[in-house]
Amino acid sequence: MESGPPGGSGPAEPGPRLRGWRGADAAASASSLSRFGAEAGCRAPAVAAVLPAGGCGERMGVPTPKQFCPILERPLISYTLQALERVSWIKDIVVAVTRENMETMKGIIQRYQHKRISLVEAGVTRHRSIFNGLKVLAEDQPNCRLSKPEVVIIHDAVRPFVEEDVLLKVVTAAQEHGASGAIRPLVSTVISPSADSCLDHSLERARHRASEMPQAFLFDVIYEAYQQCSDYDLEFGTECLHLALKYSHIKAKLVEGSPDLWKVTYKRDLYAAESIIKERISQQVCIIMDTKEDEEHVGRCLEEMLKTELNHVKVISGQDLQQIILEQCYSFVCVNVMTSDFEETQRLLNMLEESNLSILYPVVVISVHFLDYESVPFGQKMEKVMQIREFAKEAKKRNILLSGLLIYFPQEEQKLRESLRQGATIIAALIKERNSGLIGQLLVA
Amino acid sequence: MESGPPGGSGPAEPGPRLRGWRGADAAASASSLSRFGAEAGCRAPAVAAVLPAGGCGERMGVPTPKQFCPILERPLISYTLQALERVSWIKDIVVAVTRENMETMKGIIQRYQHKRISLVEAGVTRHRSIFNGLKVLAEDQPNCRLSKPEVVIIHDAVRPFVEEDVLLKVVTAAQEHGASGAIRPLVSTVISPSADSCLDHSLERARHRASEMPQAFLFDVIYEAYQQCSDYDLEFGTECLHLALKYSHIKAKLVEGSPDLWKVTYKRDLYAAESIIKERISQQVCIIMDTKEDEEHVGRCLEEMLKTELNHVKVISGQDLQQIILEQCYSFVCVNVMTSDFEETQRLLNMLEESNLSILYPVVVISVHFLDYESVPFGQKMEKVMQIREFAKEAKKRNILLSGLLIYFPQEEQKLRESLRQGATIIAALIKERNSGLIGQLLVA
Repeated sequence: MESGPPGGSGPAEPGPRLRGWRGADAAASASSLSRFGAEAGCRAPAVAAVLPAGGCGERMGVPTPKQFCPILERPLISYTLQALERVSWIKDIVVAVTRENMETMKGIIQRYQHKRISLVEAGVTRHRSIFNGLKVLAEDQPNCRLSKPEVVIIHDAVRPFVEEDVLLKVVTAAQEHGASGAIRPLVSTVISPSADSCLDHSLERARHRASEMPQAFLFDVIYEAYQQCSDYDLEFGTECLHLALKYSHIKAKLVEGSPDLWKVTYKRDLYAAESIIKERISQQVCIIMDTKEDEEHVGRCLEEMLKTELNHVKVISGQDLQQIILEQCYSFVCVNVMTSDFEETQRLLNMLEESNLSILYPVVVISVHFLDYESVPFGQKMEKVMQIREFAKEAKKRNILLSGLLIYFPQEEQKLRESLRQGATIIAALIKERNSGLIGQLLVA
Repeated sequence: MESGPPGGSGPAEPGPRLRGWRGADAAASASSLSRFGAEAGCRAPAVAAVLPAGGCGERMGVPTPKQFCPILERPLISYTLQALERVSWIKDIVVAVTRENMETMKGIIQRYQHKRISLVEAGVTRHRSIFNGLKVLAEDQPNCRLSKPEVVIIHDAVRPFVEEDVLLKVVTAAQEHGASGAIRPLVSTVISPSADSCLDHSLERARHRASEMPQAFLFDVIYEAYQQCSDYDLEFGTECLHLALKYSHIKAKLVEGSPDLWKVTYKRDLYAAESIIKERISQQVCIIMDTKEDEEHVGRCLEEMLKTELNHVKVISGQDLQQIILEQCYSFVCVNVMTSDFEETQRLLNMLEESNLSILYPVVVISVHFLDYESVPFGQKMEKVMQIREFAKEAKKRNILLSGLLIYFPQEEQKLRESLRQGATIIAALIKERNSGLIGQLLVA
């Protein structure tokens, strides 16, 4: 067994801001833990998770195993780890990866600052990988920081959208029944072919379900099942619930999961996952502006128009910025006063860089400038604001996508609203697409 | 039964260019038809298709039924109709839609110029909708232009990526066996729950398949099955292969389908479909430039750099443009000579507008201009090229997404290559995203 980077020699601890966020997260988890008592009438068990990640992704049609395929430049498995480590009552996460991918995996853990991860070598099949993961949890070795959990969650590396809610449900059900798994309705009818590829019979769709992940087990139940398990099962089986039934005689409790539990299997699923992640991180947009009278009116107008394009738009002054960063907002519109070109934007960039916010997701920053044709010629203003290209190149190194937006600022209210509306359309496009090919551009509304 | 818009009062016939494309398509289909003989040793049958499209899309979590959800602003069902009507040996396509959606559907047929479509009212269940579709094909009514086919394809309105190849396979198999359907391996294990939501048993994944669409039947086989079918089957069943087995005692031949056959079911599937369509129409990029010496070198460089970002890049002169439009290229880079600002771009826009190419997909046009800092000041050049905003507004009305790209043109070869490389990144981003929010912008490389 190989361990992920330990606290000491691992990546730098996140700054004070990120610690605040972790604090909020821990508080949320604490309340979940107390739900163990309320929901199931039982105490919170010691929980670990095992993630088989040794697959080669042959169905994807791409050379990279699907768990390592990038989504917004970050490997899929990192999103799944993030989803699990967000849940503070999961004490250990054991990931089974092939020997060839061990270094890649260590690099991912370090770069994205994952915690509580242990690595174990994958077997040649899914069941063998899971068994390897269970073995390291079973052994109370003196030099191993892992200890045997009461309940173990088994999840897939390629199901990044698992929520705490369903994890809690399967763990609670496993505590009571010995085994539990998430299920979903079937999308297609399932049929049984005869030897000559003709229809033998079709299954009644309403009487069957798709078995999904996560699943959870009393550790002893599933570990004993794997220990007794035949070579045939280890080679050709895929279903842990089946092993618990066959070898430990435990009928798993089935829990309805949400559509989000789906498994990234084909290339189209990567596209879908990327769109979902983009949508999630684009929900909240923060407009930063200091409160000068002229600007305030403009800021409110812009906010109003952005609200027709995006879900949550918040106008704040520079003072409240730290709080917003804590709240994990990944999209910023920074309104610069007409005279002082990049001051506000530069201040925001500095704070973002200090915060480590962009480690997990690309952060979009749009630097907004106003243009009054009557006082400054268009060409001259453009030339000045084109400095943004240099700022953008620097920011990109820290996963911050910076673009500029020049909004025409006429005296007439009607025309002003029109250019703000156009500005809002452009802002929404930049935030939703989050395309690094367009950084450093100065767009005009 | 209601018919789609007839030839006379329907939409205008496409221009001569589109007719050329249809010609090419017909030629491809003719060769497929001859494959009927070669592959199955039987003559080409008369084929019609029935598309149940009466669903309400409850799993999608959106108010619009999924078959009417927009992808690149065009309803999903239009893509499926396009996939079927591309196959010239499918004589008639009968679509079953609810009464409420009848007018919407007629509008779609007219706007996207679909042919050979007949509309029929959907029933309250999928089986009843299909039965309604079969009934109008069975009746040889004097005023009805439909006639009874030998083979009928049943497909879903929400599987837009069906290829001619698999249609041919199911039709050929249906001719021989009476019934046929596409199948796919199972992605999840299928389980059977007990009454108390515990695992009763799990099915061996390798012995089962997901039954997908398209399916095909000898018309008499499936029509008789529906006529004999119980009310229970019509209400609660979903599987046509099952009806053919139960009532006509026909064991359907199962045909392995490609992953593309998947059914758009959840919101994530819409995202995936949009990404796939964007990817497909962004495969081919055409760089238009007239052959002046200076430009030719630049054009070749740009081509070379674009090839690292996109699959098929072709440099042509203005004369070959008509041919490219016939070949359904949806992405154009128009290189304008340094002196004559928008001449080339304007000529391209005119041709595109005449061609009807943008009826089905948004066409991206990037107007490239070069900037020599030494001869023209940056601001002045920008101001001039900003006229693009007005052109873009006009083009958008015809589903053409126009942006400008100003490429710095230094004397030094190394620097020139660097700005061309940046230009290629921007071009690739604009083509891949196809975002209408960014039209009329002048980007700088």
